[in-house]
Amino acid sequence: MSKGGKSDQEEGEENMAAWLLGLNTLKIQPFKLPPLGPHDVRVGMKAVGICGSDALRLADYVVKEPMVIGHECAGIIEETGSEVKDLVPGDRVALEPGISFWRCDLCKEGRYNLCPDMKFFGLPPFHGSLARQIISLICGALFPEHFRALGENGRQNLDMDNIDHYWGLSWLIVHPAYLCFKLPDNVSLEAGALCEPLSVAVHACRRGNISPETNVLVMGAGPIGLVTLLAARAFGAPRIVNVDVDGNRLSVAKELGADGVVKVSTNMQDIPKEVETICYVMGAKVDVSFDCAGLSKTMSTALSVTRAGGKVCLVGLGHNEMTVPLTPAAAREVDVIGVFRYKNTWPLCIELLRSGKIDVKPLITHRFGFSQKEIEEAFETSAGGGNAIKVMFNL
Amino acid sequence: MSKGGKSDQEEGEENMAAWLLGLNTLKIQPFKLPPLGPHDVRVGMKAVGICGSDALRLADYVVKEPMVIGHECAGIIEETGSEVKDLVPGDRVALEPGISFWRCDLCKEGRYNLCPDMKFFGLPPFHGSLARQIISLICGALFPEHFRALGENGRQNLDMDNIDHYWGLSWLIVHPAYLCFKLPDNVSLEAGALCEPLSVAVHACRRGNISPETNVLVMGAGPIGLVTLLAARAFGAPRIVNVDVDGNRLSVAKELGADGVVKVSTNMQDIPKEVETICYVMGAKVDVSFDCAGLSKTMSTALSVTRAGGKVCLVGLGHNEMTVPLTPAAAREVDVIGVFRYKNTWPLCIELLRSGKIDVKPLITHRFGFSQKEIEEAFETSAGGGNAIKVMFNL
Amino acid sequence: MSKGGKSDQEEGEENMAAWLLGLNTLKIQPFKLPPLGPHDVRVGMKAVGICGSDALRLADYVVKEPMVIGHECAGIIEETGSEVKDLVPGDRVALEPGISFWRCDLCKEGRYNLCPDMKFFGLPPFHGSLARQIISLICGALFPEHFRALGENGRQNLDMDNIDHYWGLSWLIVHPAYLCFKLPDNVSLEAGALCEPLSVAVHACRRGNISPETNVLVMGAGPIGLVTLLAARAFGAPRIVNVDVDGNRLSVAKELGADGVVKVSTNMQDIPKEVETICYVMGAKVDVSFDCAGLSKTMSTALSVTRAGGKVCLVGLGHNEMTVPLTPAAAREVDVIGVFRYKNTWPLCIELLRSGKIDVKPLITHRFGFSQKEIEEAFETSAGGGNAIKVMFNL
Amino acid sequence: MSKGGKSDQEEGEENMAAWLLGLNTLKIQPFKLPPLGPHDVRVGMKAVGICGSDALRLADYVVKEPMVIGHECAGIIEETGSEVKDLVPGDRVALEPGISFWRCDLCKEGRYNLCPDMKFFGLPPFHGSLARQIISLICGALFPEHFRALGENGRQNLDMDNIDHYWGLSWLIVHPAYLCFKLPDNVSLEAGALCEPLSVAVHACRRGNISPETNVLVMGAGPIGLVTLLAARAFGAPRIVNVDVDGNRLSVAKELGADGVVKVSTNMQDIPKEVETICYVMGAKVDVSFDCAGLSKTMSTALSVTRAGGKVCLVGLGHNEMTVPLTPAAAREVDVIGVFRYKNTWPLCIELLRSGKIDVKPLITHRFGFSQKEIEEAFETSAGGGNAIKVMFNL
Repeated sequence: MSKGGKSDQEEGEENMAAWLLGLNTLKIQPFKLPPLGPHDVRVGMKAVGICGSDALRLADYVVKEPMVIGHECAGIIEETGSEVKDLVPGDRVALEPGISFWRCDLCKEGRYNLCPDMKFFGLPPFHGSLARQIISLICGALFPEHFRALGENGRQNLDMDNIDHYWGLSWLIVHPAYLCFKLPDNVSLEAGALCEPLSVAVHACRRGNISPETNVLVMGAGPIGLVTLLAARAFGAPRIVNVDVDGNRLSVAKELGADGVVKVSTNMQDIPKEVETICYVMGAKVDVSFDCAGLSKTMSTALSVTRAGGKVCLVGLGHNEMTVPLTPAAAREVDVIGVFRYKNTWPLCIELLRSGKIDVKPLITHRFGFSQKEIEEAFETSAGGGNAIKVMFNL
Repeated sequence: MSKGGKSDQEEGEENMAAWLLGLNTLKIQPFKLPPLGPHDVRVGMKAVGICGSDALRLADYVVKEPMVIGHECAGIIEETGSEVKDLVPGDRVALEPGISFWRCDLCKEGRYNLCPDMKFFGLPPFHGSLARQIISLICGALFPEHFRALGENGRQNLDMDNIDHYWGLSWLIVHPAYLCFKLPDNVSLEAGALCEPLSVAVHACRRGNISPETNVLVMGAGPIGLVTLLAARAFGAPRIVNVDVDGNRLSVAKELGADGVVKVSTNMQDIPKEVETICYVMGAKVDVSFDCAGLSKTMSTALSVTRAGGKVCLVGLGHNEMTVPLTPAAAREVDVIGVFRYKNTWPLCIELLRSGKIDVKPLITHRFGFSQKEIEEAFETSAGGGNAIKVMFNL
Repeated sequence: MSKGGKSDQEEGEENMAAWLLGLNTLKIQPFKLPPLGPHDVRVGMKAVGICGSDALRLADYVVKEPMVIGHECAGIIEETGSEVKDLVPGDRVALEPGISFWRCDLCKEGRYNLCPDMKFFGLPPFHGSLARQIISLICGALFPEHFRALGENGRQNLDMDNIDHYWGLSWLIVHPAYLCFKLPDNVSLEAGALCEPLSVAVHACRRGNISPETNVLVMGAGPIGLVTLLAARAFGAPRIVNVDVDGNRLSVAKELGADGVVKVSTNMQDIPKEVETICYVMGAKVDVSFDCAGLSKTMSTALSVTRAGGKVCLVGLGHNEMTVPLTPAAAREVDVIGVFRYKNTWPLCIELLRSGKIDVKPLITHRFGFSQKEIEEAFETSAGGGNAIKVMFNL
Repeated sequence: MSKGGKSDQEEGEENMAAWLLGLNTLKIQPFKLPPLGPHDVRVGMKAVGICGSDALRLADYVVKEPMVIGHECAGIIEETGSEVKDLVPGDRVALEPGISFWRCDLCKEGRYNLCPDMKFFGLPPFHGSLARQIISLICGALFPEHFRALGENGRQNLDMDNIDHYWGLSWLIVHPAYLCFKLPDNVSLEAGALCEPLSVAVHACRRGNISPETNVLVMGAGPIGLVTLLAARAFGAPRIVNVDVDGNRLSVAKELGADGVVKVSTNMQDIPKEVETICYVMGAKVDVSFDCAGLSKTMSTALSVTRAGGKVCLVGLGHNEMTVPLTPAAAREVDVIGVFRYKNTWPLCIELLRSGKIDVKPLITHRFGFSQKEIEEAFETSAGGGNAIKVMFNL
């Protein structure tokens, strides 16, 4: 891992990165690190999580609109800009990936997660010179349409100077200091990386206003469903029930502390029966439901089972269009709350990890190094579903 | 109009009422008024509105779950219970129809509109002796399924002692004093009756948090769409655009002060184009949309056109199931807010009418007396659509 | 303990009660229990807490305006009214003392704790026939001014039929069923009685919006300060610091889980120094302060130490007028939130006790039976301060 | 008015400015304009308001902590930075003075008005090179202590390069484009300048949650009290009553649309009587009070007169310490809401002016040019009180 002198920094630094070109070609080659601004830090990446289950589902969003894909990372500060006061080289930090512009109404109102000008780790589309863009883990395999659009030759002739900013995984990045959060000694770098998915859950719990008086239903027991379970517990929810089609995942939910689990089918006709089962297992009114799958069926179930005056938080981004019984829900003033990414969540996540209120370690089922072989294996494992929950790179 | 002595009250009083039996038989016959409790008043009805557009749409809700149907009424106090202090005979009052039970969590949390034990003017199903139930305007024609269920003979043998509590129109009712709101001199009884639909709009504006900084889109320009326009204006909305399939209704919206109107089709394929037109006519971001139709198309349009971080309030109860792009909306944190009836709205409605901030008079397009012929004509007019907005009985 | 037949109930029942007449005369004599309404239950009292520290402070409020004094009780259902469905004789219940009228704007908006017509356990002033008023524990000693006003003869000639409704301690009461909350097997009657002070703390935490991201300062470590500590912890507060003038109380706070404690003086001049110490002990920003003492000094400290944009919840009712630096606090948008009693708190309190998230047992330092000697001793112990926290009667 | 070429900009530009040195010496001399950054604009000032009443009251805050003093200005864009897209030279703009840093928790949560690193127009204390600091109107006379601290020689040897950044009035400034809001044709530059005080009122109305159902009391009828009246009306408040010690000001309040006015004394003993009068004049419950004076007496009155569950917004920064009946207010859950400056208010203010919902023209009682003689006269007029409300410079 090279570390450039100051003069190099000003012009950008040469680094090595791993690139996934197309669906199956991995290359490791140099790219230029953006210069270190006065409020920036340079971070050596140490732990990066991937969320394989996202890969497929997000495929068709790629060219339509920007979507979050699992940028979960933590590392060690290597150099700090001249104005950075709270961080020093050697600090272990978790990274919040999105860089807001702080000029739009949404940023100014405190909803920076909705900033239309946000620069998110390696997210398409290209927009010119993303000088501050982190070089991070986005698998080319996630963007089949984009690849198709480039054409065979286009793909062969990929201009690294242009594309390195939005895909590939670098082990050295430049990022604003205020988005790098110092980890206490008892929080591992891996746990730090998982502040990202945990942030989604924390933001969802805030939007759902979870408290010790909120009984919670979580539709889905994949990584996001499971961190939502953990976060809802930390927010004090007295009863939490997880629902999934996969018995293995439900076992993990049980181990992580779900008060009850319900295995469901993918058949819409089963909803009335499953609603009954969920109510029975919950043994109380469902105040807030989190739909971490985002499918017509999960949403229909959530809308039906949530009590009058309750909330359904739509966290998972599954079906684009849904066929759901919105009217009967509205007639009971069950609100549907959108949940997009997160804002101001890292300090809380780190505190929850530090205090032991949340332990994300059981979520990490597989670990890989960063050779070409291991990278391929990691993605295969993650995409394989089943018993893989969180797959982690250690650099 | 008879006025019984105190001893009569205690046993209930004989009154005359008009009944619509089945789809086309009107009878005027006696029924027993419930006794006047210490906190009750007896009101002689003077103005009652009907909402013909509800007739059809609500038809299939009847036997499934309770639904509001147009109980819009005002009258004059005839007698007051022994503990009533704020009202005296002769007072002109508008009536809030729903009687909550004030024992459930929802009532105690201030959401009494969601009270599962609420007794609502003449609403099925029968539940025993509805001693406090108002006898009010519900047209038998609205309940075709219910009528079918009764069978021909059932209908002929209708037991008035049981059914008079939920349909028919009496001109004398007993109601809790705290749900009767005194009208100032400059607010007519007709306007008082229209506090009911206006209440829906006011409750919607509160749930949508309408203020001088909220640009508003109203899907639908029927009676509820139009009172929502009026209420949003009174709440300070700087720009309001109405959307409908009917040009006549949009003309009325224009006259009532809409900043813009957009005529749309019923074709789902037209949504993208119509979204563009709506944005153009609005000339600003849509902060809050009210869907006063409640159809897959209106909801899809509303979800697409509302700005990131905005709200779509679902007011109209049209389609039970909807196919809508919930996910892209959730990914912009556009929340879907259910709106059911109203709570604590009468005082505000009356103040808005008194101060002239809202004038509901232009909404009343037809007036009828209370002979059999006129009643039939009134319902026909209301159901006829087109240029009838609000049809009013004057007793 | 007599249990009357139904005909007795309707006319009210003769029961025995202990009365504290004046400052030092205890009598046990009969009084008439109000009749059991259809929605009422009759409860045999089993555990009643007293809050001696309130005695002195509240003295001068008595004739000015109603104030809460420690009506903390639990018992066993003896008979239920004809319409009561959720409770049966033998059920162990905790009682919410205040009976709202459910007709005013505040009740209807969900703030029934502010109902101007609320009938609160034994609270002066007399207002006519308080048919539903619970006969409960209010020590005559608390009302010296009232006693003075009656005069020596007045006191000797106390008309029991009039005053038994607001002072004295009966072991049989009639109360609305919806204010009696069933206790799970693992929650003791004593713990049930302490749902009342715990309710104050829970309501305070709700008004302060305590969550896993709220660092909390509690001014005062008396009974209310200590239950606020417990409740804030249950609501997830990551750091809680208690402040008091009494080292013993602070030790109890420490044992109950305070992250830090600060012993302070009663000297206003010490505020700047103490603010510094509090910040140091907190080791983080103070997001919300609870002033459970309600004195100029405690409030001034709380206003100074709370972060910009934070809240100070005024829970304790100490000084009527306060001299406090409101302006500098307002210029940092530190809001002062009033906290009065509670609403909708019993179910949550019981759940927190059931789940073990809160254990109130350590708060009970003394227990007494109900002989004249023990009653006197109990009040002396409670008033003695020092190591008495909660003094409990077991009947 | 000179306009430098681009190379000048990069190094900063020489401009002329008027300086008020000490209490009575005016000088017009050159200073260096900061360089124009890519997101900045250079604005030629055209209208600047002063708020003389602030002068005295704020005097003793100066060396303690930063305070807002009347930076009310509008002008015309002269040059735009390379990245500025929404503004072009010639645009008429109103300026929001405070520049937040967008890195702290408060900024990120949407409360940027509380940003501890905010750079506010010309506000002491000196903090190094305020490259982006606007050069604006702060009268040296406001800082007597500061002047004393400098000493006679210090004042004679004032180093303009250091102090021009925080006092004096320049007619050319550099400011971030996102804080410059384009004025519609029908909004004058003077009205644009008054967006600043109006912003205080709008922020106060938001914090007080003013709507068509909020009866409002405004303590004070000075400039801030009057704009609060105007803003509360625009937010829909049905009844607004102004209170002041000055009959002239109350006449202006009446002309501006107050529903009632109450003249009060400065004597604390009169509070009970005045509370009665205010209630009588209001003729309804006071839902929200704005204390625009910030004195023990005004705050005591506001706390006493506001209904249970209402709010008192503390807007004026008068007395530092206050002696107020906080406890009885808290026992009715009357919350005290701090109001500091504003956030996200300019677009709404401009819309309210454009639509005619607010007309600030009647507030401007005096206009002056920018010769030494007129500047002195302007400050004398403003400080003179009485019939001067808003004194405006036209450049």
